[in-house]
Amino acid sequence: MTSRNKIVAATDQLLKRLGPRKVSRDGERKYLASFDSSKLSYDYEALVRVRTEDDVGEVLRLANEYKIPVTARGAGTSLTGSASPVRGGWVMDLSAMKRIAIRKDKSMAVVQPGAVVSDIQGAAAKEGLFYPPDPSSLKYCTIGGNIACNAGGMRCAKYGVTRDFIVALEGFLPTGEKVSWGGEYRKFATGYNIRDLWIGSEGTLGVVTKAVLKLVPMPKATWTCVAAFKTEKRALSAVKALLGEGMAPSILEYLDEDSIYCAEEIAGIRLFKKVEGKPLLLIEFDGDPVELQAVKRKLKPWVDRWALAFKDARSQSAADNLWEVRRKCSGAMFALGNAKLNEDIVVPLESQLKFIDEIKRLRKKWKLPMPTFGHAADGNFHVNIMFHREDREEHRRAEGAVHDLMQTVVALGGTISGEHGIGLAKSPFLPIARNAAEIAAMKAIKKALDPKGILNPGKLFESYQVWDKTPVDIRLPWDKKPILKA
Amino acid sequence: MTSRNKIVAATDQLLKRLGPRKVSRDGERKYLASFDSSKLSYDYEALVRVRTEDDVGEVLRLANEYKIPVTARGAGTSLTGSASPVRGGWVMDLSAMKRIAIRKDKSMAVVQPGAVVSDIQGAAAKEGLFYPPDPSSLKYCTIGGNIACNAGGMRCAKYGVTRDFIVALEGFLPTGEKVSWGGEYRKFATGYNIRDLWIGSEGTLGVVTKAVLKLVPMPKATWTCVAAFKTEKRALSAVKALLGEGMAPSILEYLDEDSIYCAEEIAGIRLFKKVEGKPLLLIEFDGDPVELQAVKRKLKPWVDRWALAFKDARSQSAADNLWEVRRKCSGAMFALGNAKLNEDIVVPLESQLKFIDEIKRLRKKWKLPMPTFGHAADGNFHVNIMFHREDREEHRRAEGAVHDLMQTVVALGGTISGEHGIGLAKSPFLPIARNAAEIAAMKAIKKALDPKGILNPGKLFESYQVWDKTPVDIRLPWDKKPILKA
Repeated sequence: MTSRNKIVAATDQLLKRLGPRKVSRDGERKYLASFDSSKLSYDYEALVRVRTEDDVGEVLRLANEYKIPVTARGAGTSLTGSASPVRGGWVMDLSAMKRIAIRKDKSMAVVQPGAVVSDIQGAAAKEGLFYPPDPSSLKYCTIGGNIACNAGGMRCAKYGVTRDFIVALEGFLPTGEKVSWGGEYRKFATGYNIRDLWIGSEGTLGVVTKAVLKLVPMPKATWTCVAAFKTEKRALSAVKALLGEGMAPSILEYLDEDSIYCAEEIAGIRLFKKVEGKPLLLIEFDGDPVELQAVKRKLKPWVDRWALAFKDARSQSAADNLWEVRRKCSGAMFALGNAKLNEDIVVPLESQLKFIDEIKRLRKKWKLPMPTFGHAADGNFHVNIMFHREDREEHRRAEGAVHDLMQTVVALGGTISGEHGIGLAKSPFLPIARNAAEIAAMKAIKKALDPKGILNPGKLFESYQVWDKTPVDIRLPWDKKPILKA
Repeated sequence: MTSRNKIVAATDQLLKRLGPRKVSRDGERKYLASFDSSKLSYDYEALVRVRTEDDVGEVLRLANEYKIPVTARGAGTSLTGSASPVRGGWVMDLSAMKRIAIRKDKSMAVVQPGAVVSDIQGAAAKEGLFYPPDPSSLKYCTIGGNIACNAGGMRCAKYGVTRDFIVALEGFLPTGEKVSWGGEYRKFATGYNIRDLWIGSEGTLGVVTKAVLKLVPMPKATWTCVAAFKTEKRALSAVKALLGEGMAPSILEYLDEDSIYCAEEIAGIRLFKKVEGKPLLLIEFDGDPVELQAVKRKLKPWVDRWALAFKDARSQSAADNLWEVRRKCSGAMFALGNAKLNEDIVVPLESQLKFIDEIKRLRKKWKLPMPTFGHAADGNFHVNIMFHREDREEHRRAEGAVHDLMQTVVALGGTISGEHGIGLAKSPFLPIARNAAEIAAMKAIKKALDPKGILNPGKLFESYQVWDKTPVDIRLPWDKKPILKA
């Protein structure tokens, strides 16, 4: 541990070099950066609002000299505590570094880490280009954070995750040395690929100050439809059949019976008159209108064979109506409990039917509601374990349920996180998903690149008990509004 | 250095454990594994032809115990010496581990490292699926080698490189510990991404024993065409215009005037009656026939604006005829010199016109022919520096030219290798492309994962003078047949 005197002296130095406009030892802004979307708040020494690359290098070099923990953050939408300063020290806020430049003829964007994902999408759209990754917090979350946790979203079904759109990264090693991995070109085979090692390393191996993103042509049209199924197993069998026919929906979202209960009974949204309480698939295809015509023709026999009911949208507002069921069910879950563990586990396609049985078993065993929805095409499901935080016994059951869930998905050949990452919240489960040699290799890499252990310490590898800590009571801008009864 | 006695004792142990069918201390097979396609041959102790995962672990654990260098290899098509046992020790040949299983409903292939790339493509095609990466040695090279150097090929223009098709890897750390990075699912955010760190690490950070590959639907049709241009700059300006319009050719190959000279004057191939000696673009689009009709319509004004002459193929055999110019020009280059430095540099799109000037400057300065062709869509060009090996003075000039070329492409914002990797051949140039902190980070990772330094030592980071060593005089199965005069 770094001594109190040393931290104070280092922060004095930092203030001297960067000035009081960038460095705050107190204030509301500093408090708001003491937690991320996990709402686990930690005391720390100073908030540094960096504005330039040089600032970032300066902070890191000083942190190394004095051995001060540094936690980099953007908007703080992380659900895992990965942007929380659990070891104190300094929080480096990169959200002011948010420039976006579109390179139309190369189909690339060059962005700073604080650029908000939907702003990047907007800038690309003006040039007829498209940045597909779409985490649900896209109107708030920054590209730096998306890179840190390799964010996904619904469109991964067709387009892939953040990683698939990163051409190059530039930034600083934990030691404060400037590095770049790749450039504004599409191919390199020039030494180790540390670009992709950084992606998903949750801010522990480096700080990104510039990213080159790949853009794709903006799809000319989209077609949204929804199908209801007799059973959950039938819905997921239909997913397998659809993919097996080589169809490539841009979005393929599954909502189980409990999620539908939340949407229909609590939020009051009914998509089909004659079909009630049945699991849904929400499907979107994008592309040329001609292509979409072919898709519609091809989907018809699949609908006839698998679906109980089917509806498509003829307009954007009709499509928005279909999406409402997915949007609202999430808020409606709070009628089942005032606390939600929103997990993002992955199960391989061939285990999806078994997974339904396992969720049933978990619900029964732990006596908790677990509405489950998510990205069926890549087996990345959000299991929402609902409980009442103030009920100690329910609290304990929720804790048991999440542990059981993690063991279950790994036994099914899947993994414990598909898009949120490990952070603090899933650190106790990493040894379930990874063997000792794998974790030792990761820790050896961490030690090699961050010998003083200053960058985002305490994450991923040290088992942290989130249950021992009470989240702060605050509503964040991206929080889903609880719907208790429509 | 490991003492002679220790190597002999370790090899005795290896023989005892794996048996004489798998371990050879001499023989032709052993000799043939003493070099790769760079033809730089090195003396080494034993060839180990592994057949199972357990064999691989056994070899690595023993190598660690006795500190024996281990060089893993597949077919040995590497052009950089990355598969040559430059430090002696053991060569681990994985080509017998070549099983291929296609998972049709998941659009994945599960393969062993020795599987030949064209065999994987063939197996996928039987299920209507497609594995796009297509290095020119694809009928011989193994997927393990493709992963080791992150192989590219012509279809990267649309589809990307090997990395873009790797879902998961399984294998051994240099220490002989079994690890897996990912599984048969598309998303993971579960600790550091060592999968992508392995890809392109040229066999220095681990040995792959299983890979899960992403497959895509087999395109229903292709359309091949060729366009001649007044000047090289006009050809590459046309590339920029084409990409700027959002068109996505599956292949977009550029052949400069010198390459065309080789094709026309030496190999005797003429694609256009009235246009002679002019640079070409060879273009292929793939997709649905309906899509291809739209592409043809969209391409017309581009052709009218940019091209001097244009021709498309109405049949597969006509397409093959068009490709002949690209295939044959390579062999015809040997009329200009009996030795070829086939570089694979990358320049960003905005520097391509300057690059043409620079190649002219290099030719003039070093007085050597440098026919240049390659993958224009991603700026990955093969500069073929031709010289006569026995001519000491020409030899020296070729050495100067390649060094100059590397400095030039980095100054243009590009990099020294796009798909071949560093190996031995480009090790002196790595510090041109990468700064000291970047190289130090790579070496720190190497040390962290391979503390005894046994896996493929001497590659990438230690500057090796290929010029001091004479290649062996042998024709390998994938060598282009020299064409001295048609």
